[in-house]
Amino acid sequence: MTSSNKTQPGNYFEDFAVGQVLTHATPRTVTEGDVALYTALYGGRFLLTSSAEAARAVGFAAQPIDDMLTFHVVFGKTVPDISLNAVANLGYGEGIFGVPVYAGDTLTADSEVIGLKENSNGKTGVVYVRSTGTNQRGETVVSYVRWVMVNKRDATNVAPKPVLLSLAPTVDVTDLHVPEGLDLSGYDVKRAGSVHRFGDYRVGERIDHVDGMTVEEAEHMMATRLYQNTAKVHFNQFAQSSGRFGRRLMYGGHVISIARALSFNGLGNAFKLAAINAGTHANPVFAGDTVFAWSEILDTAEVPGRRDVGAIRVRTVATKDQPAAEHPYKDADGKYLPSVLLDFDYWVLMPL
Amino acid sequence: MTSSNKTQPGNYFEDFAVGQVLTHATPRTVTEGDVALYTALYGGRFLLTSSAEAARAVGFAAQPIDDMLTFHVVFGKTVPDISLNAVANLGYGEGIFGVPVYAGDTLTADSEVIGLKENSNGKTGVVYVRSTGTNQRGETVVSYVRWVMVNKRDATNVAPKPVLLSLAPTVDVTDLHVPEGLDLSGYDVKRAGSVHRFGDYRVGERIDHVDGMTVEEAEHMMATRLYQNTAKVHFNQFAQSSGRFGRRLMYGGHVISIARALSFNGLGNAFKLAAINAGTHANPVFAGDTVFAWSEILDTAEVPGRRDVGAIRVRTVATKDQPAAEHPYKDADGKYLPSVLLDFDYWVLMPL
Amino acid sequence: MTSSNKTQPGNYFEDFAVGQVLTHATPRTVTEGDVALYTALYGGRFLLTSSAEAARAVGFAAQPIDDMLTFHVVFGKTVPDISLNAVANLGYGEGIFGVPVYAGDTLTADSEVIGLKENSNGKTGVVYVRSTGTNQRGETVVSYVRWVMVNKRDATNVAPKPVLLSLAPTVDVTDLHVPEGLDLSGYDVKRAGSVHRFGDYRVGERIDHVDGMTVEEAEHMMATRLYQNTAKVHFNQFAQSSGRFGRRLMYGGHVISIARALSFNGLGNAFKLAAINAGTHANPVFAGDTVFAWSEILDTAEVPGRRDVGAIRVRTVATKDQPAAEHPYKDADGKYLPSVLLDFDYWVLMPL
Repeated sequence: MTSSNKTQPGNYFEDFAVGQVLTHATPRTVTEGDVALYTALYGGRFLLTSSAEAARAVGFAAQPIDDMLTFHVVFGKTVPDISLNAVANLGYGEGIFGVPVYAGDTLTADSEVIGLKENSNGKTGVVYVRSTGTNQRGETVVSYVRWVMVNKRDATNVAPKPVLLSLAPTVDVTDLHVPEGLDLSGYDVKRAGSVHRFGDYRVGERIDHVDGMTVEEAEHMMATRLYQNTAKVHFNQFAQSSGRFGRRLMYGGHVISIARALSFNGLGNAFKLAAINAGTHANPVFAGDTVFAWSEILDTAEVPGRRDVGAIRVRTVATKDQPAAEHPYKDADGKYLPSVLLDFDYWVLMPL
Repeated sequence: MTSSNKTQPGNYFEDFAVGQVLTHATPRTVTEGDVALYTALYGGRFLLTSSAEAARAVGFAAQPIDDMLTFHVVFGKTVPDISLNAVANLGYGEGIFGVPVYAGDTLTADSEVIGLKENSNGKTGVVYVRSTGTNQRGETVVSYVRWVMVNKRDATNVAPKPVLLSLAPTVDVTDLHVPEGLDLSGYDVKRAGSVHRFGDYRVGERIDHVDGMTVEEAEHMMATRLYQNTAKVHFNQFAQSSGRFGRRLMYGGHVISIARALSFNGLGNAFKLAAINAGTHANPVFAGDTVFAWSEILDTAEVPGRRDVGAIRVRTVATKDQPAAEHPYKDADGKYLPSVLLDFDYWVLMPL
Repeated sequence: MTSSNKTQPGNYFEDFAVGQVLTHATPRTVTEGDVALYTALYGGRFLLTSSAEAARAVGFAAQPIDDMLTFHVVFGKTVPDISLNAVANLGYGEGIFGVPVYAGDTLTADSEVIGLKENSNGKTGVVYVRSTGTNQRGETVVSYVRWVMVNKRDATNVAPKPVLLSLAPTVDVTDLHVPEGLDLSGYDVKRAGSVHRFGDYRVGERIDHVDGMTVEEAEHMMATRLYQNTAKVHFNQFAQSSGRFGRRLMYGGHVISIARALSFNGLGNAFKLAAINAGTHANPVFAGDTVFAWSEILDTAEVPGRRDVGAIRVRTVATKDQPAAEHPYKDADGKYLPSVLLDFDYWVLMPL
């Protein structure tokens, strides 16, 4: 009886080198089936990802796939190579959404290692990658930086020379991608479910999105498998029972999508995510938790050359088991409150 | 720090006036993805909504969307404007299904307020609306009356002049819509799974649909989000924990779809819902409940000008945790038994 | 009040006769929606069922439906006629997958009774059927033998003359169906997620697929309804509460699909199931169980006339709540260990 070594052990900190390019498996064709599941999982109601007619009326070729669905599919592909042995997903930044994704498109993901730093304990290190998703024509659909804490294979291994990154705190508005052919003169505010346009939002304004969504194990696991994300902590209760939390951990991206769906109530015309400036998963979330969200308007910007669409920089904060009317966020020391799950800073497009 | 008033508070009783027209958000393109989810949620096996080949063989352009899926999508759109502050969904009536809906169609919903009556307690009132779903060509796909009990914003506000309705107890068979081009000569009874045709059913006959279906939280929430129905009681365990039941309430329409799917066992050739005469949710239903159903044949009618299809008026009663062999329904005082969830009176089409 | 006899009682042992042909309901059009749900339920990552581009690059007309999804849809149709009154699903064999199934195809199932044997207790008997699934052009998509233990209607009924079968222990490699036009020169091993090809596998080699997947009630019920499988034990907690296990039993096929998805980690280029040699459900599985899997390479074979693809005969064993590193299987007496759920012997195709 021979035992095989054909399974994927994932990469350890020592396996990464700056400049290394990772070719991820498996390309994935997204379909109307994925769109329906995404609706069933989050209940999104933004006009242009709900109605093919409304999408075509503003110049899309068809109903675009939700930007976060695109993100999750690309992210999922990076997991086996980048974060299978990760201790923690530390953050995202410099994320830009490219060409729209439509049902029938096939998404492929690649990453480049752009930073490395061993932690002082010698047991783990931080890996920075830029991951890029492309469609079947090689066009970029999303590109973002992620950094994760990864276990070393062997603590006695010598640390590599640190390569540190200084990330832009926010994507510049001139780098935002407005879909080709977009013309919001055909945008139907009445049917979109919100009368508030770009000009109605003020920097500093805070919006309690009111509604709460309780998450079940079956839901977050179906979502995470839909994204072909293989991180073990989400699926294996047998192993988790003897782990730190005793429970399956929810994929952090599931919370982003819940928060985005909840944000419809207050940001109903934020029809498209254009960029992810920064994202932090502040605390773990488990089945049975009820997710709430609130947002702060961080900035508003004209989009160069556009008279129909503007960009709004939003911070959306998700909490668990705490309604968001009081805008729970950080304590006096600047630490996230225990109820805070997500701190997500992003640009949306909105009709002028 | 400014707090926003951009979220939707929903309408209170004082906000409604007879003649008022409500333009609902958000239009929704239904797809093959929705069809697959509907099958996964209910397990329906009616021939023409299961097989595109069988549907085309009787003259449909393609496999039609299940009529109750159409209903739920339209209903879901009405919730933010009509029943966000509802105390109870009191009933449905005068529902007629129009042109068939196919994958790719985009559904839009509008409602007209057709009746109002404040309750004697001064705290709530009953609102009657006629809601209409239309496709992208403006054709009606379903139209029905619903009445809900809605909270007043302020009990001291003066009551409006009551406008009462007298609803037709049943949709007249001459008002039923038979899909254009339908020709049941191509209907394959053998493959449909039931040998019983229109002529085999007798008024007064009762059918125990035998099977039971236990519902999970993840299932009813995924269904309700798929319909973009935003009623808070279905999703937010944190809030419900301190509410009347301590639990998330299931969308009543979920029970209708379960009962319809169970009714295949006994009504296998009832290939299409043509009308909803009346519908009442008799008791709340929660995750963990096992739903059973039985039906009574209330009437049979020839469809004018048709030699291939007849109409059968059915009452389907759903129960929880009580098998339906004894046809549980009402007590001696005419009150629904505690196990009864649904009393649904409708017309189906069936091959002659 | 008349009570109806229009529901399907299912067949009892006495209702079967060798040579009898059963025409199953209901034909089912499979779609991209089913594919998305299948991904959400199992998380499969095999290249050709994930990417339409990759599938076309090797000569498929489009992205093929997962072979096990095809199997489940066909199997589901046979349940109302064959196993509604079954005590146990005893085994499968002689299963061959035919032409590829694509979204839009409509599947129909028929079975022929090919063996019968009453058990010595006089209360039950074993029924052998050959079930065949065909597409809308009448081409075979899958054909397999199944045997089930079925209740007699009346123990005093006289036993039929036994007709016994001797099944081939394995499908001959010359009977495997290689999809027409397949040309693996376009197969992208890099994007497939595994570098191991046909020539890398050795007979006797064992592979621990490492990962574990915990199953929820909502998941196995959604899967089983998606397949329109109506076996009562999967859905009705009310009835099961007073049954042998006190719980809903999971459809055994759900475990096959989980094990197949887990087997990607070690068999990543096993892009297609070509045959099912034998399958046994060794122990029942319930919600909350965590499924693991390991495989043994039983045989490798060249495919006649092919220089691009070979066949590997694999035994995949699924366990519950026991990781598979030690390859748990049978005890010293040849009995399956209590943790073993599935013993599945099948041929896969893999690039040379």
